[in-house]
Amino acid sequence: MAITDRRTVLQAAAALPLATAANAAFAQTPGGTAAAPAKPAPKDVTRELAHYIVTSSYDDLPANVRKEGVRTFLNWVGVAIGGSRHQTVDIAVAALTPFSGPAQASLFGRRERFDIMNAAFLNGVSSHIFDYDDTHLKTIIHPAGPVASAIIALSELQPVSGKDFLNALVLGVETECRIGNAVYPNHYDVGWHITGTAGVFGSAAAVGKLLKLNEQQMVWALGLAASQPVGLRESFGSMNKSFNPGRAASNGIFAAMLASKNFTSSDGMIEAKRGWANTISTKQDYNEILGDLGKRYEAALNTYKPFACGIVMHPAIDAAVQLRNENKLTADQIERVDLKVHPLVIELTGKKNIREGLEGKFSIYHAVAVALVEGAGGEKQFSDRAVKDPTIAALRAKVNPVVTPGIDAAQVDMTIVLKDGRQLHRYIEHAIGSIEKPMTDQQLEVKFTDLADGIIPAPMIRRVMDACWNVESLPNAAEIAKMSVSA
Amino acid sequence: MAITDRRTVLQAAAALPLATAANAAFAQTPGGTAAAPAKPAPKDVTRELAHYIVTSSYDDLPANVRKEGVRTFLNWVGVAIGGSRHQTVDIAVAALTPFSGPAQASLFGRRERFDIMNAAFLNGVSSHIFDYDDTHLKTIIHPAGPVASAIIALSELQPVSGKDFLNALVLGVETECRIGNAVYPNHYDVGWHITGTAGVFGSAAAVGKLLKLNEQQMVWALGLAASQPVGLRESFGSMNKSFNPGRAASNGIFAAMLASKNFTSSDGMIEAKRGWANTISTKQDYNEILGDLGKRYEAALNTYKPFACGIVMHPAIDAAVQLRNENKLTADQIERVDLKVHPLVIELTGKKNIREGLEGKFSIYHAVAVALVEGAGGEKQFSDRAVKDPTIAALRAKVNPVVTPGIDAAQVDMTIVLKDGRQLHRYIEHAIGSIEKPMTDQQLEVKFTDLADGIIPAPMIRRVMDACWNVESLPNAAEIAKMSVSA
Repeated sequence: MAITDRRTVLQAAAALPLATAANAAFAQTPGGTAAAPAKPAPKDVTRELAHYIVTSSYDDLPANVRKEGVRTFLNWVGVAIGGSRHQTVDIAVAALTPFSGPAQASLFGRRERFDIMNAAFLNGVSSHIFDYDDTHLKTIIHPAGPVASAIIALSELQPVSGKDFLNALVLGVETECRIGNAVYPNHYDVGWHITGTAGVFGSAAAVGKLLKLNEQQMVWALGLAASQPVGLRESFGSMNKSFNPGRAASNGIFAAMLASKNFTSSDGMIEAKRGWANTISTKQDYNEILGDLGKRYEAALNTYKPFACGIVMHPAIDAAVQLRNENKLTADQIERVDLKVHPLVIELTGKKNIREGLEGKFSIYHAVAVALVEGAGGEKQFSDRAVKDPTIAALRAKVNPVVTPGIDAAQVDMTIVLKDGRQLHRYIEHAIGSIEKPMTDQQLEVKFTDLADGIIPAPMIRRVMDACWNVESLPNAAEIAKMSVSA
Repeated sequence: MAITDRRTVLQAAAALPLATAANAAFAQTPGGTAAAPAKPAPKDVTRELAHYIVTSSYDDLPANVRKEGVRTFLNWVGVAIGGSRHQTVDIAVAALTPFSGPAQASLFGRRERFDIMNAAFLNGVSSHIFDYDDTHLKTIIHPAGPVASAIIALSELQPVSGKDFLNALVLGVETECRIGNAVYPNHYDVGWHITGTAGVFGSAAAVGKLLKLNEQQMVWALGLAASQPVGLRESFGSMNKSFNPGRAASNGIFAAMLASKNFTSSDGMIEAKRGWANTISTKQDYNEILGDLGKRYEAALNTYKPFACGIVMHPAIDAAVQLRNENKLTADQIERVDLKVHPLVIELTGKKNIREGLEGKFSIYHAVAVALVEGAGGEKQFSDRAVKDPTIAALRAKVNPVVTPGIDAAQVDMTIVLKDGRQLHRYIEHAIGSIEKPMTDQQLEVKFTDLADGIIPAPMIRRVMDACWNVESLPNAAEIAKMSVSA
């Protein structure tokens, strides 16, 4: 009887076509847990965010934000091209080809064309495969994937000026990172892949901006985005991880396109009692979403990885490359490499005996050895070729990481002992690529060139990079997609 | 410093391309909340479920389960046709037409054709618009929407025998309801629209079964489904509510199609420490997923609504229709209608002065009045026409609901006082459509006919119902979709 009552009571509210969140509350019973969020929801968070997105223009962007937006885009194009030949993309292309709509948009680094939703998904997957894309360090969101994948595809369907494109990119990144800030770290800690869950909002906001949605339509686009979070951390280590930013991109387009025809949602999907933030996180800081809109720019805090592996190894690679280049070191000179490291380095990258490229990404021994021999830590340095190289393999055995108190995960203390008795020392407080020591434009070009090498024609690599640097002057941002396909 | 450390530590795990859940755990810091689930995750929940799905066949289904599966499908076809002319579908069709792939599948009640993913979405939306579809009362999941929408579309792309179709439908419903049971009520109470979150699994399982995925591929399909939950309760009352079962259907196809080409996911996406159940719910009862597989069938517990409104009003409508028909009542005979009701009836359906059809769904006064005048509670009885009818409007003023202790939400005690002094009494313990008093096949046909009337040709209504009853004997279930389009 009590059971019957509970079932019917709950069903009563659920089954009501127009049950409001307030009404639904009546359906709660003592049996229900976690029914009520800690605090009453504030008003109009979704609407105020939507108002900002639909009213802000390119001319409102500070120079440093525009500059970082351009760097964000160039880095994204590089990783999207770089990942395009990976088996993950081959499989997804094969699976989706029978269902694709008109050939509206390009795949970076490939020749196939798909409708914009599928193209956004595939380019988003491609750009995340190497985990070599950009990072908003406060939330670990990889901001460009969900946003750039969506709007570059849209620009092939309807021309988008470079200025409008950059403004939409910044607004999309701003939206996803601010929403991510509001729920981070709880939301991430419990298991969500925040790039996919917050990313949908970024894609919907940026696409909606380019579709010129009005405020109400943007509210609905954000609401439909809130209804489609993507990704769990458990999938890390499988193709499912790069699936997440790709699906966030296509879900955001799906949301914005429906909203553009007045497909409705609730007006408070982000902040309502049973809206996104309360349902998906135990922390909600709405000031992170609305505070200093148009003044504080999360999009200006984006960072880029110089090395194609988890950043826990970046300080050591940075130190090794510096000492190698400054001293013109060769492997045969090296007696021993002593590393003082944070415990996480051993926990996450302690693989000593490795046989293939992917294992190299989990071996601090390999990362240091290959950096000393080749002076780099790109995708090529984590290939089967590099791992099987006898010189590098021999040097791996001479690398001695020692967990040392006082060394944090961003740091390393390296001492190279040479056979001639000399000792070379380097302490890294902030590795290259960190917010404190960002990659230079020139370093971004080296990374881009390394990724695109062999995928698009050499002369075209230079032209694509120039087009990215000059995106604001392009009549249509789509030119960059059209230039980035394989020969 | 602590902050920097936390960010980099967390990023380290997040950025590792192959970080496992175990590794990711090292990235947790005291700052992280809700990081650890209550219990250690059990082994192989996803795999054992996948094994069951890929190995069970039509011949394993008990007769009562097959019968309920057929009723589930017939009811779904009726609501899918019935909702097809709603503005919500018109808008979605207009928004998605430019992006649709080949015209692979039909829209019920309409003439357009879309690729199977978009068709599944649109039919899923159509079938939920009136909140008139089926209900698994233990979880409030509307099981057919996500599953039937997906596999009927697939059957138009690759022929599916009626027996295989019914088996896939039952397995899909079984999968979503068992996964729903594992996290209900906590998962629903906090704000998730469980039809969309559990429904993705049902669609992926059913589509994967028809694609003949092997066990590992089915594990991946369930993993990719886990990565795409859909829907928040805050959206109830907007078009976004019917969006959810539709998107669950298309997301499930997307997951299964990728898995069929060996797009990988984690092997433990349902049960792992940072898998679906721990991330999306504070309750996880894995025995609900794996217990008595192939013996206990949630699919046999499906129920269907006789009235096109929230079930809180169903007992009163049931009583009114019974007393009207037994006594050949006309409105002019009625002096007063006294109702003893549960508080929820007033809370959710207490609207007294109403002007349009939709408001009628929230007015116990209208529901009783129209049931007494027209002997029904279908979509037509909640139209503007019915609400504006003077006879019905006059009778609404004579309906007196009184909250009475001891009357639960499934019950009503109705006394009709006639002008000639007679009193007619009816106590309803379980309304028609409840699990204790299911709709008969004949009542399902009346509901179907009422929904399809005016949308598909009258003679075709009979033929479609016959085809549904005989689905197990059809060489290709797709025939039913082809018969159900508008003239």
